[in-house]
Amino acid sequence: QLPLAVIAGPCQLESRAHGLEMASALREIAAGLGFGLVFKASFDKANRTSAGGARGMGMAQSLPVFAEIRESLRLPVLTDVHEPGQCAPVAEAVDVLQIPAFLCRQTDLLVAAAATGRVVNVKKGQFLAPWDMKNVIAKVTGAGNPRVLATERGASFGYNTLVSDMRALPIMAAMGAPVIFDATHSVQQPGGQGTSSGGQREFVPVLARAAVAVGVAGVFIETHQDPDHAPSDGPNMVPLRDFPRLIETLMEFDALAKQRAGA
Amino acid sequence: QLPLAVIAGPCQLESRAHGLEMASALREIAAGLGFGLVFKASFDKANRTSAGGARGMGMAQSLPVFAEIRESLRLPVLTDVHEPGQCAPVAEAVDVLQIPAFLCRQTDLLVAAAATGRVVNVKKGQFLAPWDMKNVIAKVTGAGNPRVLATERGASFGYNTLVSDMRALPIMAAMGAPVIFDATHSVQQPGGQGTSSGGQREFVPVLARAAVAVGVAGVFIETHQDPDHAPSDGPNMVPLRDFPRLIETLMEFDALAKQRAGA
Amino acid sequence: QLPLAVIAGPCQLESRAHGLEMASALREIAAGLGFGLVFKASFDKANRTSAGGARGMGMAQSLPVFAEIRESLRLPVLTDVHEPGQCAPVAEAVDVLQIPAFLCRQTDLLVAAAATGRVVNVKKGQFLAPWDMKNVIAKVTGAGNPRVLATERGASFGYNTLVSDMRALPIMAAMGAPVIFDATHSVQQPGGQGTSSGGQREFVPVLARAAVAVGVAGVFIETHQDPDHAPSDGPNMVPLRDFPRLIETLMEFDALAKQRAGA
Amino acid sequence: QLPLAVIAGPCQLESRAHGLEMASALREIAAGLGFGLVFKASFDKANRTSAGGARGMGMAQSLPVFAEIRESLRLPVLTDVHEPGQCAPVAEAVDVLQIPAFLCRQTDLLVAAAATGRVVNVKKGQFLAPWDMKNVIAKVTGAGNPRVLATERGASFGYNTLVSDMRALPIMAAMGAPVIFDATHSVQQPGGQGTSSGGQREFVPVLARAAVAVGVAGVFIETHQDPDHAPSDGPNMVPLRDFPRLIETLMEFDALAKQRAGA
Repeated sequence: QLPLAVIAGPCQLESRAHGLEMASALREIAAGLGFGLVFKASFDKANRTSAGGARGMGMAQSLPVFAEIRESLRLPVLTDVHEPGQCAPVAEAVDVLQIPAFLCRQTDLLVAAAATGRVVNVKKGQFLAPWDMKNVIAKVTGAGNPRVLATERGASFGYNTLVSDMRALPIMAAMGAPVIFDATHSVQQPGGQGTSSGGQREFVPVLARAAVAVGVAGVFIETHQDPDHAPSDGPNMVPLRDFPRLIETLMEFDALAKQRAGA
Repeated sequence: QLPLAVIAGPCQLESRAHGLEMASALREIAAGLGFGLVFKASFDKANRTSAGGARGMGMAQSLPVFAEIRESLRLPVLTDVHEPGQCAPVAEAVDVLQIPAFLCRQTDLLVAAAATGRVVNVKKGQFLAPWDMKNVIAKVTGAGNPRVLATERGASFGYNTLVSDMRALPIMAAMGAPVIFDATHSVQQPGGQGTSSGGQREFVPVLARAAVAVGVAGVFIETHQDPDHAPSDGPNMVPLRDFPRLIETLMEFDALAKQRAGA
Repeated sequence: QLPLAVIAGPCQLESRAHGLEMASALREIAAGLGFGLVFKASFDKANRTSAGGARGMGMAQSLPVFAEIRESLRLPVLTDVHEPGQCAPVAEAVDVLQIPAFLCRQTDLLVAAAATGRVVNVKKGQFLAPWDMKNVIAKVTGAGNPRVLATERGASFGYNTLVSDMRALPIMAAMGAPVIFDATHSVQQPGGQGTSSGGQREFVPVLARAAVAVGVAGVFIETHQDPDHAPSDGPNMVPLRDFPRLIETLMEFDALAKQRAGA
Repeated sequence: QLPLAVIAGPCQLESRAHGLEMASALREIAAGLGFGLVFKASFDKANRTSAGGARGMGMAQSLPVFAEIRESLRLPVLTDVHEPGQCAPVAEAVDVLQIPAFLCRQTDLLVAAAATGRVVNVKKGQFLAPWDMKNVIAKVTGAGNPRVLATERGASFGYNTLVSDMRALPIMAAMGAPVIFDATHSVQQPGGQGTSSGGQREFVPVLARAAVAVGVAGVFIETHQDPDHAPSDGPNMVPLRDFPRLIETLMEFDALAKQRAGA
């Protein structure tokens, strides 16, 4: 029954300067509102809708920036991994290894992430029932790492649309893993713009409120100072200027939800 | 931005005594907690999964009981109608005519309900997109009756399952009709028990919290003193003894949601 | 293992002249190719997407035309009914009473249709699992009428889209009712044009071939001499000029499917 | 408009002897019926539902067996790859590299497979719309390899269920890639048995007929001499003894479909 954690940051690390700037800005907001922040950024967008989508700075360029953010700003950092071989080097630079939704059943990747001893945040596949996450979580814990988070990010619902089933949150919580609600990817419209994914930014606060009221350990919300010009996930990122008010609201819902747990 | 309204009652009117008893009990709870109550009961379960399911007392037997509840307990009463010809006589005895989800596109029924001048509560079909409710609401308002409510009760999601898309709530609210969240039927498992529908009562508070946090005009929750022996919808009705605590929690979320509207 | 039956005609009866013309044209095609034809037309589109959609000639004007088509052209006629009270008079003029998909669980309508002794064709609701049709069929047979057909017309799949699950065909056939595949409404995009439904006419032959190869008693295909100017279902009706070639192909698949039944 | 190709074999390579035996048996059936056969077996089940599921012989043990089947039996061999680094060595031993459905958007894997110059068979993700395969195929062709196949294997439909949308076949065919219908995984019930996936073997012939009637370049059907004791995918594999009759039927549908193409 800890207070709401917030995983936030831009979709991808765009440059050292951009990463440090975003992390500083978020750190200041977190200090002001008093929430626990984990800084998130991707070093590689490995599954873009089309080959032409910007992939990011790459692992070699990004790890030093992650390490710098972690050390200079004293922020825990989260990033996603895509192949087993990436886990060990990435774990040197960050605090949380995230398993992308499409890869949530790749046993070798889960086991390699677990082996680093870092916290592992597994995103539930769009093709998975909530109860199927039990086997996914067991792949991590069975590899000797009990520090696993389960993230809801929407289920396939017809074509190019996801739906957020709020029942998934208590179902996954009952498995013992802290549950995170990813409000950014839950409003994604996969492939919805032909050669890139669309999104419905206006529903981020809607779904985030709903999830926090139900009860979660944390939220995952991507933010950017200028989402409409971001290289990826622009349509579903929250503008940085709207971020503090959104989190403040969620913190109030969280306090009430935890006071009213089980009622 | 009125406080949360609550539509509550047993799935079907089982007898005059049962109806009066339930209505009195709910009225007392409403007075204690200070919420606006509409008493709900059906006179006919016209679309049971199988022909053998109990259908209820019928219109002729039920209307006097509804009138009695309305007058003696001074409670507004809601019931559902299934054919255009039922609308006028039912409107004599109740305050709100409800259009069942399967029938939400039957133009004659909507127009006949509208013509009574009573409030019309239309349940969104399990097969309908939220934005399609615009045409449904327009059938009622176009018939000269602006007093229409739109109720979310889940969308088809594979077989024998519904999912509650919380985005539907603001989408429908933008149409101008007060939005109700039906937490009872949203947890139904249609046809899920072979010759009757199943349900997941444990998710009623989960989905109701989520919806109220997003922001609704009211909730619709069926309740019964002994759901496991109720003639219909037992698996998804909330036991009457758990009802006050549930509503109390929802009222707190409602107060916060309305204070934080748009944030 | 009878040869393929074909239920065909325009979506709605537009006028006496139009009905007779379409029926004559189809009768000639049926005679030429040697298939069993049932003429279909609706007297009332009772559940149009919006109130402004053309509803048709109405029951009083249409029944004499149906009777005339039946007698002068010696064609069996099918039409759909929407309220229990319509069943008896409609049964005087037609051979098959059809229950619309949205209404497939309305017990009174099914029982009233059954009571006429006419063949009853029930369309499976977009919200229904194939196995749930067992209870629906039992409502008709339990009312004393064993002459019931079950029609597949797509299942809800996300918003504004249907999907045809070919597994539904053998599942329903195992219930003992001849199974019809409605290729016209299976390609409908419900509500997909804002105030009317869209459709994908180009997939009618695709889905019809698939269904016939799996094995069905008949197909249901709406056709029109000028679909793009038809008052309803234009986007998913097949142009009359393409109809003979389509049916000829389906008859070849049907012959093969029935020769290879169970293999 | 080539005759139907058949990709067949056991889910996983169980041993050298088992692989050779299955390949010989299938080769004999293919010679008897006159169809083009590609032998399929997996060296690693990299995404089992649970960590306890049998994963197979591994790459090092399997590649020599694949090479032996290819050379001694003169059969083209297909297997699936899970990481970019596997592509080059696997391409030494087989003719077709298959990209698993969960991995169909992993750019590096697609590009590495393309770079081998081997045929690349990409399975459409359960979370992907048919039209989204255009971007997937372009990742392979854009890497300089035009020899790409697109395989339909079902779309997510609620939880633990897939549905086969036959419209996907012509949509993908219009992209220029030969389309394969995977009848085995289309009847999978992902995660449906708690710690493993279930399946509905009885629907393999149903869906395969439908797909072949619509028109495909080939079918993908896993088979086993004793599916109920197979280490993986047992519930949806066809017993080897039923395989010849199934293919014979499909070949007849294929001949008709190709004669009637576009009609």
